[in-house]
Amino acid sequence: MMPLVNEYSIGLDLGGTNLRAAAIDRSGAILEKTSGRTEFSAGREAVMEDIVSAIELLREKYGTGALSGIGIGVPGFIVFKEGVIRNSNNLPFLENFPIRDEISRRLGSFVILENDANAAALGEKWRGAGREVDDLVLLTLGTGIGGGIIAGGRVIRGFAGMGGELGHIVAVPNGNPCGCGSQGCVEKHASATAVTAMARLMQLGENLSSKEVYELAQRTDQAGGKAREIWRVMGESLGSTLALLINTFNFPLYLLSGGMLPAWEFFGPPMMAAVERQSATYRLTKPNTRIEKATLGNEAGLYGAAYLPWVEDRPATA
Amino acid sequence: MMPLVNEYSIGLDLGGTNLRAAAIDRSGAILEKTSGRTEFSAGREAVMEDIVSAIELLREKYGTGALSGIGIGVPGFIVFKEGVIRNSNNLPFLENFPIRDEISRRLGSFVILENDANAAALGEKWRGAGREVDDLVLLTLGTGIGGGIIAGGRVIRGFAGMGGELGHIVAVPNGNPCGCGSQGCVEKHASATAVTAMARLMQLGENLSSKEVYELAQRTDQAGGKAREIWRVMGESLGSTLALLINTFNFPLYLLSGGMLPAWEFFGPPMMAAVERQSATYRLTKPNTRIEKATLGNEAGLYGAAYLPWVEDRPATA
Repeated sequence: MMPLVNEYSIGLDLGGTNLRAAAIDRSGAILEKTSGRTEFSAGREAVMEDIVSAIELLREKYGTGALSGIGIGVPGFIVFKEGVIRNSNNLPFLENFPIRDEISRRLGSFVILENDANAAALGEKWRGAGREVDDLVLLTLGTGIGGGIIAGGRVIRGFAGMGGELGHIVAVPNGNPCGCGSQGCVEKHASATAVTAMARLMQLGENLSSKEVYELAQRTDQAGGKAREIWRVMGESLGSTLALLINTFNFPLYLLSGGMLPAWEFFGPPMMAAVERQSATYRLTKPNTRIEKATLGNEAGLYGAAYLPWVEDRPATA
Repeated sequence: MMPLVNEYSIGLDLGGTNLRAAAIDRSGAILEKTSGRTEFSAGREAVMEDIVSAIELLREKYGTGALSGIGIGVPGFIVFKEGVIRNSNNLPFLENFPIRDEISRRLGSFVILENDANAAALGEKWRGAGREVDDLVLLTLGTGIGGGIIAGGRVIRGFAGMGGELGHIVAVPNGNPCGCGSQGCVEKHASATAVTAMARLMQLGENLSSKEVYELAQRTDQAGGKAREIWRVMGESLGSTLALLINTFNFPLYLLSGGMLPAWEFFGPPMMAAVERQSATYRLTKPNTRIEKATLGNEAGLYGAAYLPWVEDRPATA
């Protein structure tokens, strides 16, 4: 008997405080979306059950016959072939546990595990700002900086799942120290956390959010000038990083996402000036090398997770 | 009738002063190798004839039936889909000319045009230091610095053929000016030309080759100390570039090639220290992330060119 719904897949995005899932059909139309809180403190079994039941709910409604597979985006380094999280700041209790195979066993369905920023990059490629291209880089600007690289329509993961760890590219030699053990990492100079730290150094406030620093930058007084300096410096660090990505890849599209995008009016011009100064490839290909805002917001990861079963080969063992 | 020779292809490497070609079989065995001078000053038609006759000579001997295709490596930015050199310092008279299609027409065979450093990276992947991997980055250290990136066994070219232009990654902010219009490009701090320039700055000599600076570094006097400082600084620039490539790709293998490799004993340790300091990915994956010498020398490009017909899709129009 033919299934009554079109072919679809289920994407799940496991964030720091909430878990979102969606059934999405092959054309990219969202059939249904759910979200709920996750309590990481409740431990592994509770989180596993949250994941499994969110997926079951959607699958019961749209059927097993038409389900192509399940993609799950999580923060951390994924050993893709094994379906294991090797290292995660947020989910230590899921490290080195056969999470993919365990979820697959409980559900009896094909499951793919992916890093959340990689999933977001893939989502933008499928249904977002990257729809027209097969090659792009996404930088996610949040409390940290993450990244995802799509080459020929597929994620570049590296052998230990650390491909696209662009937040730890050194943008500022002799710059701020980083928890990773290096210094001058772009995430210590261009993330929301870095903006807050610079606001303190500029004596604008001890705990300003990047949104507050953005609002300050709109003022015409001295504080406004200091805030604009912060965005200039932040933009230049970001521009250095983009320049080397452009030199490395010569891809047509580089996307930025995250809550700081409204401040583009302040960090964008110095960012573009740094790119222009530091990348001959950019200068030579300018109209066709685009640096733009991502368009899917925090749904990018959900789209990308759902897209995975259609773009990745089914492992021989699954 | 079955062909009497095994399936083979012809690779051609068009260098600054000479043209080399080889017939290589599917297993990587060189059936025959030829080389001759090219006179770029003689202009386009002469170079085209040199290319065509070098290939014809091999094809007549090994037959048309078993020939899978022809790969040609040239210096410059290649628009791969068009088979056109967009920009080349050495071959300006071949720019924007349908070189691939013209050679294909004259020979009546399938032809692929590729950037020479990309071809070298592919050659190392096929038959050199990268035989065991599908993902690697090659840096060619010569008068300039070139690069090639292999991901999933295929070249990352970028949309304008400028992918892997790693010599123009900024390794030294506020560093030496570069003809590309940027400053601090790694090729202005870690190429053979940069070593010569630093030797002058250190008052060791006005026109020392990198080989001479290497020999100086082996001495125990003051000049030896100055020469070792040059290699330290050169190694640190190279290490910064490698660190960001490792952070970007998390590939298992990064190869260096070129005439300066014997000086590894001097530039290698500071290079590795910079990588260690600037890349958390390297620190976390150390035994499995390898930085090594390429093994095919200047035959890498010949191997890579010959391999192209087996790894690239035949265009619909060919």
